[in-house]
Amino acid sequence: MNELLIEKLNRRYATKSFDREKVVSDIDWATLEEALRLTPSSYGMQPWKFLVIRDQAVKDSLVPVSWNQAQVADCSHLVVITVRTDVTGEDVDKLIEAAAVARGTDVESLEFYRRMIISDVVEGPRSLDVVGWAKLQSYIALGNLMTCAALLDIDCCPMEGFMPDKYDEILGLAEKGLTTSVVCPVGYRAEDDKYASKPKVRFPRDDVFETI
Amino acid sequence: MNELLIEKLNRRYATKSFDREKVVSDIDWATLEEALRLTPSSYGMQPWKFLVIRDQAVKDSLVPVSWNQAQVADCSHLVVITVRTDVTGEDVDKLIEAAAVARGTDVESLEFYRRMIISDVVEGPRSLDVVGWAKLQSYIALGNLMTCAALLDIDCCPMEGFMPDKYDEILGLAEKGLTTSVVCPVGYRAEDDKYASKPKVRFPRDDVFETI
Repeated sequence: MNELLIEKLNRRYATKSFDREKVVSDIDWATLEEALRLTPSSYGMQPWKFLVIRDQAVKDSLVPVSWNQAQVADCSHLVVITVRTDVTGEDVDKLIEAAAVARGTDVESLEFYRRMIISDVVEGPRSLDVVGWAKLQSYIALGNLMTCAALLDIDCCPMEGFMPDKYDEILGLAEKGLTTSVVCPVGYRAEDDKYASKPKVRFPRDDVFETI
Repeated sequence: MNELLIEKLNRRYATKSFDREKVVSDIDWATLEEALRLTPSSYGMQPWKFLVIRDQAVKDSLVPVSWNQAQVADCSHLVVITVRTDVTGEDVDKLIEAAAVARGTDVESLEFYRRMIISDVVEGPRSLDVVGWAKLQSYIALGNLMTCAALLDIDCCPMEGFMPDKYDEILGLAEKGLTTSVVCPVGYRAEDDKYASKPKVRFPRDDVFETI
């Protein structure tokens, strides 16, 4: 696994040109969705919703608000990672209820856990910028997605170069209490994408690690 | 790979109790470091430094400023993911020089790329909260680390419950132009960690996915 992992992470790159004819298979897509669903988040709050855009007209409409990057239209599955604009006591209750069911216990036994989340995310320090906190969690999902895709030889292109307000508008997110965090077209590299063969640029180990 | 991936992600959990006797092997640790080093980031800027704390006294000193969570002391390798407190034109130049070397070209040919980063991260929209932007990138690294560790049957516990100012102080980060973003103890679960066998709590697929 060690060598395979590094080989796959080296094969991965920010895909500039997708093959429009190649579609991620249902079985692979189901795996990536399940991987995303299993992503860890602070307190297990999962303050996100993953929009998967397959409709070509919708994908096309997002290109002009994505710095004209064609990957948005040419990919197989366009993942728009959105986050909650607010986290309320009801959201915490929903998690606690899900936890009680999953663990075969009652919500009362999880009261300490519930109070801890409320006193941080709903009423405490994280509530001061709950969208910022939720976006951090969403980048865990992005990291997980990119690594899992790489392991399945599926390509992607993480993207911050887009207009979040326009995404929110086009996708009708405000009324759902969501806002766009980050975008990730997923699919297969075009055979002629010259970026595929360019050496990866990473600082040497000693520049980014310090052992104490 | 599909089934293996989901199996490993299901096996993963936020480890509450580490086995103090079990140390991550050199070969596995080298793999995790290389995986972290290969983490994608916006513009490839890698605005981070990964501190790997092995010294027991330092680990112990961080427990009181980590909400007394013993994982910080009991893990094999404590990863403190830090980010740059500032990103300057010189930092961009450093990346451009590394890119020119890696790609066998000259820095002049990368001027468009350099200007694009400068006009966003150093002088533009991202510069308004460059630490926030860098922290987002660092969570990609966290997501990548957790997934890669899971694939190697190595346990970890992502942690936001700590005092960043105290971490910065104890680790002397300010003078290095760094600040603590997120913490991740890495090692092996204790045999008696009862959280290992608790069912994972995740919202159902349709609550967190919408296909368009």
